[in-house]
Amino acid sequence: MNKKMKLLLASFVGTSIVLAGCSSSNLSIEKKVEAETKTSTKGVEVIAPHKDLNQAPIPLKIERVSANEVNVEMTAQITDIEIDKGYMYKAWTFNGEAPGPVVIVNEGDTINFTLKNMDPAIPHSMDFHAVHASPSKDFANVEPDETGTFSYPANNPGVFMYHCGTSPVLSHIANGMHGTIIVKPKNGYPTDKEIDKEFLIIQNEWYKYNDLEDFTNGVPSQVVFSTKALKDGDRNTNGDTFTLKDEPLLAKVGDRVRIYVNNVGPNEVSSFHVVGTVFDDVYIDGNPNNHMKGMQTVLLPASGGAVVEFTVTREGSYSIVTHQFNHATKGAVAILKVTATGEDDGSAVMGH
Amino acid sequence: MNKKMKLLLASFVGTSIVLAGCSSSNLSIEKKVEAETKTSTKGVEVIAPHKDLNQAPIPLKIERVSANEVNVEMTAQITDIEIDKGYMYKAWTFNGEAPGPVVIVNEGDTINFTLKNMDPAIPHSMDFHAVHASPSKDFANVEPDETGTFSYPANNPGVFMYHCGTSPVLSHIANGMHGTIIVKPKNGYPTDKEIDKEFLIIQNEWYKYNDLEDFTNGVPSQVVFSTKALKDGDRNTNGDTFTLKDEPLLAKVGDRVRIYVNNVGPNEVSSFHVVGTVFDDVYIDGNPNNHMKGMQTVLLPASGGAVVEFTVTREGSYSIVTHQFNHATKGAVAILKVTATGEDDGSAVMGH
Amino acid sequence: MNKKMKLLLASFVGTSIVLAGCSSSNLSIEKKVEAETKTSTKGVEVIAPHKDLNQAPIPLKIERVSANEVNVEMTAQITDIEIDKGYMYKAWTFNGEAPGPVVIVNEGDTINFTLKNMDPAIPHSMDFHAVHASPSKDFANVEPDETGTFSYPANNPGVFMYHCGTSPVLSHIANGMHGTIIVKPKNGYPTDKEIDKEFLIIQNEWYKYNDLEDFTNGVPSQVVFSTKALKDGDRNTNGDTFTLKDEPLLAKVGDRVRIYVNNVGPNEVSSFHVVGTVFDDVYIDGNPNNHMKGMQTVLLPASGGAVVEFTVTREGSYSIVTHQFNHATKGAVAILKVTATGEDDGSAVMGH
Repeated sequence: MNKKMKLLLASFVGTSIVLAGCSSSNLSIEKKVEAETKTSTKGVEVIAPHKDLNQAPIPLKIERVSANEVNVEMTAQITDIEIDKGYMYKAWTFNGEAPGPVVIVNEGDTINFTLKNMDPAIPHSMDFHAVHASPSKDFANVEPDETGTFSYPANNPGVFMYHCGTSPVLSHIANGMHGTIIVKPKNGYPTDKEIDKEFLIIQNEWYKYNDLEDFTNGVPSQVVFSTKALKDGDRNTNGDTFTLKDEPLLAKVGDRVRIYVNNVGPNEVSSFHVVGTVFDDVYIDGNPNNHMKGMQTVLLPASGGAVVEFTVTREGSYSIVTHQFNHATKGAVAILKVTATGEDDGSAVMGH
Repeated sequence: MNKKMKLLLASFVGTSIVLAGCSSSNLSIEKKVEAETKTSTKGVEVIAPHKDLNQAPIPLKIERVSANEVNVEMTAQITDIEIDKGYMYKAWTFNGEAPGPVVIVNEGDTINFTLKNMDPAIPHSMDFHAVHASPSKDFANVEPDETGTFSYPANNPGVFMYHCGTSPVLSHIANGMHGTIIVKPKNGYPTDKEIDKEFLIIQNEWYKYNDLEDFTNGVPSQVVFSTKALKDGDRNTNGDTFTLKDEPLLAKVGDRVRIYVNNVGPNEVSSFHVVGTVFDDVYIDGNPNNHMKGMQTVLLPASGGAVVEFTVTREGSYSIVTHQFNHATKGAVAILKVTATGEDDGSAVMGH
Repeated sequence: MNKKMKLLLASFVGTSIVLAGCSSSNLSIEKKVEAETKTSTKGVEVIAPHKDLNQAPIPLKIERVSANEVNVEMTAQITDIEIDKGYMYKAWTFNGEAPGPVVIVNEGDTINFTLKNMDPAIPHSMDFHAVHASPSKDFANVEPDETGTFSYPANNPGVFMYHCGTSPVLSHIANGMHGTIIVKPKNGYPTDKEIDKEFLIIQNEWYKYNDLEDFTNGVPSQVVFSTKALKDGDRNTNGDTFTLKDEPLLAKVGDRVRIYVNNVGPNEVSSFHVVGTVFDDVYIDGNPNNHMKGMQTVLLPASGGAVVEFTVTREGSYSIVTHQFNHATKGAVAILKVTATGEDDGSAVMGH
C-alpha cells in the first residue's frame, strides 16, 4: 500500500464521521471509527482560549425605565451546555444558555441594549429580528472583554429570533448564540381572554462541534426543543435543552393553551405540531393580523415564529413535535401532560 | 492489505448504498456495489415474522350510524406494495395500502374507531390529526393479533394526515403507515359550486427498507404521489403508488378542478404545483377560513394539507409535481389529462 | 492490492467530490482529491457540442403590440456564467443569463411568445408559471436551431417563476434555465403609493456541473441571489450572480423599499429575511389578496414568489439573506446599503 492510498484512507476516516448518518451494514465498526475521530476532531476544533473555559450562566438583566423604554443587558459567554444525555457542548452563548434567555418587551418600546462580551477570544454581537436598526452600526461587533451599548425601537408585535450576527454568522448561531424575543402586541391578540396556560418552545439544531464544514453541508446530530419561563416561577430554566421529554409541560383538562414557538435553525425549517389536538388559532410570526384557523401543523421558516392556540380535552400526555420526523427522532419532542388538576400526577409519559 | 483496512473498506461498502446518491465518475461500479449490498441489507432488516408474510388488502369499513357518528374499522397489516416499477416493498400498512385508504367524515362527527392489528410481530396504533383525543390513551398501542376501539370527535374541517403513532414513530410512518382523513366543512367551501372534478393526491417518501438510520439521516430513494377514490367508482386504488404518471387523472376543457392534497412525509416538505395553470383558490390545511388566492405553488409542511382549485382551459397533459425537482425526479409527478370530452383520448402524455 | 480494491477506491475518489461537503480532519488532502476529480468529471459531463461553445448574451425582446398583448422573444443558448469568483459554469440559459432576464407584463395580457433555440445539441422549452396553457402543446419542445411560437394569457397578478420544461426538467433548471416573470396587478397593490425603491431578487442553487445524480441527491455547492433591472438604467445585469455582496443595492434613509422575490430552486425552499428591519407588508406569491403583516421572514417554496415591503430607518448596510444559514454561507447574501442621500458613499459593507 503506497503513501497516496494511505492519505486517501485517512481522509475517508475523517469523512466517516458524517457518514455515520448514512446507513452501514456494520454499524459497530462505523461507530468505532467515529468515536476515535470525533475525539481528535474535538481537540482540533475547540478554540484554544475556550479550552478550559466554562463561564457560569449570568442572569439576563431587564428593567423597565419608562412607559416605552426598557434596559436589557446580556452577556456573550462560553458555557458548557448538555445538548443530549451526557453530551456536553462547549457552547457560544448568550448568558450561559443556548437558546439564550427569552426577552419580553411591549410593542412600541425602545430597547437600550448592552452586550458584555466575556469571550476572551472572539467578537460577538446582537441581531434582534424585532427591531429597526442599522445592522452595520447597531448590530456591530463587541470585541473580547469589551462592552457595547445600542438603542433601537421594537415597533412590530410578534415572536422573533435573536442571534449573534458576527461573521461567520452560521458558526455563531450553530454554536449556540440564538434565542427568542417576544414583542407583546399593544392591543393584544383577539383570543387573549380564552388562554389558560402559555409556553414558549424554541427549536434549534446542533451539529459537530464548531465545524463550519458540517454546519454548511452536514445533517444535524441533534434537533431539540427548549422552553423558557414566561413568568417568574413558571419553570426552571437551566440552559439544558434535552429535558422537555422528561420534564413535561403541564395543563388541566379543558385548558386553552397558547404556545409561542420560534425555530432558530440555523438551517432547517420546522413543521410544528401537537399530537391529539388541532390549532384553533394561529398567528404567523406572532402578528395578530396574520390570523389562521384550524391548522394541524404550522410551517416555520428558519428564524420564523408563530403563536398557536389549542384546547386539550382529555387527560393524558400530548407529544409536541416537528412532524419532520427525522428531526423529531433526533430529539425535537416535548410532552404536554394534561391532568384533571393541572398538577403532575406522576404518570408515565408516552415516548417516540 | 491488513485486517483494519479490510474492515474500513467493508464499512465503506455499506456506506456506498447511500452514496449512490452522490455522484461518481464511474456509476456502473457504484451501482454494482450497491446492488450486492442492498440484497444483504434487505435480508437483515425484514423482521423475521414478516419474512414470508404478504397479507391481502382488506377494504376499509366505514358506516354512518347516526347524523353525527361514524364507525370506522381499519387493519394494521403487512403487505407488499410496488413503490416503483418492479420494486416491491414489504410495507407496514393500514388495510394493505400505503398510503392507507382515505377516510371521509363530516365536521362535527364522532368517530368510533376500531383497529385490528394483524401484524404478528409488533404493536401499532392510530393518530388522526383531525380529532381531539388523549394521545396516550386514545392513540394507544394495539398489540399483535389484538383489536382496539376508541372514540373521539372531528370538529375541525380540513385535509388531515393520519399515521401510526407507535414508537419509533418514524419507522412506522416511513414503512408505510400513513394516509389522509378529510373532514368536510359543515358549511362547505365558498367555491363549492364551481367545482367540476375533485381528486385527492398524497405525497410520501420511501427510504431503504426498514432502516431507521436511513430514515433519520438519508435522502429518500423514492418520492411519490398517490391518489384515492373520493367517490365509489371514481378510481381504482390498489395500494400501488407509482402509477399516477401512467394512468392520468382526467378532466374536460373548462373544468374547474379541486385537489385535496396532503404531504405525509415523513421528513420532507412539499412545493405542490400544477403545470399550465394557477391556483385560483387555496385553503391552507383545508380550512375554509384560510383562503388564499392566485398561487403558483403551495408549500406543505410535513403532515400538512391543502385544498387547491384551478381551471384547465386547453386540451393537453398537465403535470402535477412537487417543484422541489429533486423529489419530482424521484417520482412525485402525476398527470392530469385534459380532453374535449373529459374521457381519455389515448394520446401520449408528456414526461419529466 | 487487487483490482477490485482499486476499483472501489476509484469510486470513492469520485464520491469524495460530494464528500468535500462532509467534514474531514484533513481538508487540504480532501481538496486536492476533489480538484483532480472535478476536472475529469467535467470532461465527461459537458455535452460534446457544448464544449467550445460560449454564445454571447442576446437581450430579451419585449414589445407591447396592443393594450392587452405583448410580444416576447427569448433564446435558449449556452453561455458561460460566473457563479462564484472565478468559477465559470457553462450554463444552459435563457438569453445568456442565469437566472434569465426578468419579463414584466400586466394582468390580463396575452403573451405571444417566441423561443429561438440556439443550442445545437438538445431541445428546450418555456414553462411560464404565470399563464394558463396546455403544457404538452404550449410548453412544447423547440428542437435545436429551430424557433417555436406560442400564445397564452397571464390573468393572475404576482411574482412567478419561469423555466425550461424539457425532460429531464431538473437538469434544465439546475443548469440555469430559470427566471422570473412579474405580472403587475390591474389595480396595483394597496401599498403602491408608499414605495420609494423596488428591487427584484432571485434565489437559485448550483450543483456539480450537469450532474443529474448530484442535482437529485447532492447538496448545492452554491446558493446565490441575483437581481435584474426593473426599469432601464436601474442596474446593470450581466448574468453574473455572485456580485450582490460586492455591488450593493442602494436606498435612502426613510425609504420604503419593495422587493419582488422569487426562489427558483430547483430543490430548496428559502427563508427570505432582511437584517435590521421587519416586513411591514407581504403579498404571498405577489397576489394583492394574500396580504400578511409584520413578518421577520418569508418562507418561499421551490418556485414560490412574494412581494415584501419594509422601511429602512438608519444609515448602514443591511444584509439580505436566506435565514437557512447553510445556504447564506454558500452565497445567498445581498447587501442593501442605506445612505443619507441614497447614493453610494463608498463605505465598506458588512460581511457574513
